[in-house]
Amino acid sequence: VRVLVVHAHPEPRSFCSALKDLALEALPAAGHEVALSDLYAMGWKAVADAADFSERADPAFLKYQAEQRRAAETGGFSADIAAEMEKLRRADGVILNFPMWWFGLPAILKGWIDRVLAVGFAYGGGRWFDTGPLRGRRAMVAMTTGGLPDRFSDGGLFGPIATVLHPLRVGTLNFVGLDTVEPFIAWGAAQVSPERRAAYLAAYRERLLGFETAPLEPFRRLADYPSPAPRDH
Amino acid sequence: VRVLVVHAHPEPRSFCSALKDLALEALPAAGHEVALSDLYAMGWKAVADAADFSERADPAFLKYQAEQRRAAETGGFSADIAAEMEKLRRADGVILNFPMWWFGLPAILKGWIDRVLAVGFAYGGGRWFDTGPLRGRRAMVAMTTGGLPDRFSDGGLFGPIATVLHPLRVGTLNFVGLDTVEPFIAWGAAQVSPERRAAYLAAYRERLLGFETAPLEPFRRLADYPSPAPRDH
Repeated sequence: VRVLVVHAHPEPRSFCSALKDLALEALPAAGHEVALSDLYAMGWKAVADAADFSERADPAFLKYQAEQRRAAETGGFSADIAAEMEKLRRADGVILNFPMWWFGLPAILKGWIDRVLAVGFAYGGGRWFDTGPLRGRRAMVAMTTGGLPDRFSDGGLFGPIATVLHPLRVGTLNFVGLDTVEPFIAWGAAQVSPERRAAYLAAYRERLLGFETAPLEPFRRLADYPSPAPRDH
Repeated sequence: VRVLVVHAHPEPRSFCSALKDLALEALPAAGHEVALSDLYAMGWKAVADAADFSERADPAFLKYQAEQRRAAETGGFSADIAAEMEKLRRADGVILNFPMWWFGLPAILKGWIDRVLAVGFAYGGGRWFDTGPLRGRRAMVAMTTGGLPDRFSDGGLFGPIATVLHPLRVGTLNFVGLDTVEPFIAWGAAQVSPERRAAYLAAYRERLLGFETAPLEPFRRLADYPSPAPRDH
């Protein structure tokens, strides 16, 4: 199978980058094909703006989602966005590899989401969740945290990790049709012992080799939720 | 009082930008002082990287948080970051004004969080939540959404809005000591009627005028949560 790894860490020798390197080694060794988007190394443009389109539906007023919809019809995305879309089309699985910053994605990776998961490409026209254009693919979060798991428990200071990851899992990955497997989390990567880090790498290798067969997390199907309210509430 | 508005929308004539314009007009008219960080207009750099520091603790290995800690001691932040820190220091209140993209912040605003709320400035050394360096200030989210409120209800497809906002409210604003008031949300801003938009603006004006006296949302105090686990779990 083909796996796209989207990586977002500024230091190539960080532990987070070691997770990325492991995926690049372990997946091909098991016969899989890997593509990499190393966002810092690519100098990825994080900010969604008018330069993302080669021509405009309305050059005088930037309605970003409307421009995405048009660009999806005309092929009018900037080259960097179009290249990432092609990687996603060719992939059977996607791994987002990043350090958790402020309970979420580093801005450079959020900008990959903002710009690449465009209306008309990744959702829109009634296609989302179980009718999403990226349906049939699976996604895994591979992330490092500063905090340890007790902080992210039900009674922990930070709240449950499922709540912390809700915008990413439900609001982003499931939204465009991607199934998810259990996230791989290297808790407290910067503060744990070398032995613990080695154990994380060994565990992640197993997770990588089982990525395509691992159980899927619950997925919200449109039929299970009430119809939307009238447009003007 | 002094209010800092941090605004993140690429189109100056959007409804989201109209909310920002309203704050710039209504707050001074009521005797308050307003500062603005219009991130798109400023060409704000979203991506946290080595260029954020005028000198490095370790030029060979970028540990971003360690460099922040050092820069907070030496004054070694890049000029754009230092200017935003000064705005925050001078402010009694902060408004984050943005369109909700993928259940969260546009990348340019996430990059403001990543770069400005630095270790040593906004948290660190045991100072966070009710001992956070930005304690005594209040924050309000002012955002537009694509979806209508029923989608963000307990049984809705997207999950409760409190869950969606958890990483921002608890994981970011409360984390550095900022209290929050109820978010102002213009639901479905792109799809509702002109009358509904006018009603949103009228409601937001009231919220702006009451910002400094509005009830605070619940805040997690360190004493209410168990001590952290041993560092190597």
